[in-house]
Amino acid sequence: MNPRTLRFVLYVDGLLLLILAAAMTVPMIVDAAESQRDWLTFATSAGVTAYVGGSLAFACRGDRGAIDRRGGYLLTASAWVVVCAFASLPLHFSSLHLSFADAFFETMSGLTTTGSTVITGLDHLPPGLLLWRSLLNWIGGVGIVVMAIVMLPALGVGGMQLFRTESSDISGKPVPRAVEMAGLTVLVYVGLSVACAAAYGVAGMNFFDAVNHAMATIATGGFSTKDASIGYYNSVPIELVSIVFMIAGACPLIWYARLIIHRRQALSEERQVPALLGVLLVAIAAATVWNCATNGMSLGHSLRVSAFNVTSVLTDTGFATSDFAGWGSFAIGLFFLLYLIGGCAGSTSGAIKIFRWQILFVSARRQVRMMLSPHRVLATRYGERAVDDETVQSVRNFFFLYLLTLLILTLVVTATGIDFLSSVSAVAQAMANAGPGLGKMGGPAGNFEAFPDAAKWLLSLAMLLGRLELSTIYVLLLSDYWRG
Amino acid sequence: MNPRTLRFVLYVDGLLLLILAAAMTVPMIVDAAESQRDWLTFATSAGVTAYVGGSLAFACRGDRGAIDRRGGYLLTASAWVVVCAFASLPLHFSSLHLSFADAFFETMSGLTTTGSTVITGLDHLPPGLLLWRSLLNWIGGVGIVVMAIVMLPALGVGGMQLFRTESSDISGKPVPRAVEMAGLTVLVYVGLSVACAAAYGVAGMNFFDAVNHAMATIATGGFSTKDASIGYYNSVPIELVSIVFMIAGACPLIWYARLIIHRRQALSEERQVPALLGVLLVAIAAATVWNCATNGMSLGHSLRVSAFNVTSVLTDTGFATSDFAGWGSFAIGLFFLLYLIGGCAGSTSGAIKIFRWQILFVSARRQVRMMLSPHRVLATRYGERAVDDETVQSVRNFFFLYLLTLLILTLVVTATGIDFLSSVSAVAQAMANAGPGLGKMGGPAGNFEAFPDAAKWLLSLAMLLGRLELSTIYVLLLSDYWRG
Repeated sequence: MNPRTLRFVLYVDGLLLLILAAAMTVPMIVDAAESQRDWLTFATSAGVTAYVGGSLAFACRGDRGAIDRRGGYLLTASAWVVVCAFASLPLHFSSLHLSFADAFFETMSGLTTTGSTVITGLDHLPPGLLLWRSLLNWIGGVGIVVMAIVMLPALGVGGMQLFRTESSDISGKPVPRAVEMAGLTVLVYVGLSVACAAAYGVAGMNFFDAVNHAMATIATGGFSTKDASIGYYNSVPIELVSIVFMIAGACPLIWYARLIIHRRQALSEERQVPALLGVLLVAIAAATVWNCATNGMSLGHSLRVSAFNVTSVLTDTGFATSDFAGWGSFAIGLFFLLYLIGGCAGSTSGAIKIFRWQILFVSARRQVRMMLSPHRVLATRYGERAVDDETVQSVRNFFFLYLLTLLILTLVVTATGIDFLSSVSAVAQAMANAGPGLGKMGGPAGNFEAFPDAAKWLLSLAMLLGRLELSTIYVLLLSDYWRG
Repeated sequence: MNPRTLRFVLYVDGLLLLILAAAMTVPMIVDAAESQRDWLTFATSAGVTAYVGGSLAFACRGDRGAIDRRGGYLLTASAWVVVCAFASLPLHFSSLHLSFADAFFETMSGLTTTGSTVITGLDHLPPGLLLWRSLLNWIGGVGIVVMAIVMLPALGVGGMQLFRTESSDISGKPVPRAVEMAGLTVLVYVGLSVACAAAYGVAGMNFFDAVNHAMATIATGGFSTKDASIGYYNSVPIELVSIVFMIAGACPLIWYARLIIHRRQALSEERQVPALLGVLLVAIAAATVWNCATNGMSLGHSLRVSAFNVTSVLTDTGFATSDFAGWGSFAIGLFFLLYLIGGCAGSTSGAIKIFRWQILFVSARRQVRMMLSPHRVLATRYGERAVDDETVQSVRNFFFLYLLTLLILTLVVTATGIDFLSSVSAVAQAMANAGPGLGKMGGPAGNFEAFPDAAKWLLSLAMLLGRLELSTIYVLLLSDYWRG
């Protein structure tokens, strides 16, 4: 590792901590306005974070731009871990008295837009802490999308390389400008958040809840201000708003900009969104039929709870209106599959993602067809375009690493004594950044409080691995990485 | 589909039925000698099978050799289904009065060397029926190995292409003669079976049990003559014999011939066997520690039951000496992983198989290393040789199809109302041709009797898909296959 690169990485980490400290002043002000003692917690945390961030940035200033590929990986990974560690300070020092393992888990869950929680009694928490959780979701969501557009393609990680040419359509320029795209995406993100908050307000939420839930919805984050999540409101309009904006958050954000500029073309060329909607409809229909047939629900009620909770799981949001882990065998199997599918690349949702599944399917079909005529040259097609072998290799390898990571982490979590279903679903939801699990522990009716600390650290790791598309972390484990 | 090809496929199916009918006379003679009424069942079944087989072979004779790739797939798939259907006749018509779903399940389990059973009360079954079950294991085992050597490589299925050059070492000729290899393999198979039976006899089994268990052991089949499986004997020597020959069955059979001819070279070049033994030792050690730590077993007892049951699951045999599904969370996670790993290619064991994992790992490592220097050309190495991209693609695609099949079949089995763990472990063991599952239903303490018929058919399909390495069946689902 080049010392100049390391300096630059630390410099950027420092800058990010300064931004984080600034973000902490928002809940500080809210708590101060409401005369909540936790404003002091935020003030202290912001002070510590700003001090450390400022010192780092100051000590490592200069050498700007001295970043190469290797530095990029370290920057991405270290930024997430460092920001997460400092962002957990308010939770650790607050009146909640969370242990550091708990605070780190909650923060990682927030920033990766997972939405798993270790806190019971959300309904009676000071508003600053609730707002901080929602902000973690919201900041994490925008961080992920910007990272996916600016950072990862340059590093050759994630699937967004495939969309580079496509995305350049927006500016009409031959070379896409990542910064311009990132700017547009942030605009879309803010616009959707405002629209979502307004819609929640119209549907009957008070201002504070609407703002918090809007941030958690667009980020497909899933943190709620209520223990019973969206189920607390028992309101069809609120659930409908939530469904619409969860789906909105799981669509590629840059697509909205294209929709405005190109309309028809953007509609007809988009491959992920129709597939996402198709999976959603099939899964909702299947869950509805199952709930009617075996859980004695009326068609209307079954459709209502199935539509909401299936959407929440497929988009990896993590809201719930019902204890869907209690719906029985087929529902468990279905939700487990949905954990693996996930939303669209270029959105805030996680997991393997729609476009990877599409490439896995078309290339598998091609591979089987090759068995009939081994010497015929068949192209793997994605929409109008041919997908090169390199992309297919990378997607297939991702699938292998994803399932391998899921299996290994599950095995380690079971070693802490947690039953198989709770373990495997906890790891699957963590890697997908989805929210609740499906077992006796960590299901939608409960939370992750009772997990042993070791399991919480493992699940934090699973969230980070899923969020950073695995390889960004795995490359740091190569001896080659640190050599020379 | 060419009508001449179809005729030839039916002709071969007919011949195989004639061989099957001949095999049925063995238990017939045993039952007749013991004055068991079931000798009539075998006689009738043999008669029906011979009549249908003979008619088919006679009606479709001529046109020999008119087989192409497409015909090859149909031949392989149809042979397994047709043979399985007729081989289930004795179980269906016997004094057991199994339904056809049960009889087909039991037979498919036997022929694919899975070892799952729907029969309770094995200890009191007529000897002919017990022998028939063992014979199904044994015939299935040799059928699989011969198929893997002769048929599948010619069809481009399975991983044995990779070993073609290597295997040609035996004859020293540049072009390997598949028939010669198959002959050697059968010799090794018979030799190992005789040795195993003798060893069981020395260890204390009676002649009948020794012969039956030897057939089920070398085939890594797992059918026993006792409900309590090998646990019935409660004998360390018998368990040791079983462990040694289960491992022997999970090694590539052709490797033994190479060992005799080339000795040192065969030892030093072999990559799968050391990895298999390595996985085995690590898994036994982990299970031993877990059982001591959480199940209150003494070190000696823990080592004994861990060694046996881990070996049985990893080699996909399916014997048991203990209800290992009751060992708790980590053990469940570990056994689930072992279901996916499996034995060596070129053996009778199933699942993803050692060499595929090896290729997945080295190629994943290469892929991550490429992130550091995208323009460097790095080869994927397997032992001394470079693995071409085509093989890597095919192995990665196999991994995807395997996991996808596992997930989809699990979802369909859960829809029959069986809990998630029972479903996912039943499908995983069926695809791996392993034996017992890990849930409340189908675990080592029970069997598959209580599964609904729909689930039994699905599991039969899973066994067949796993045994035929998926693509052999999936190619038949292409519209291209039946066209032109």
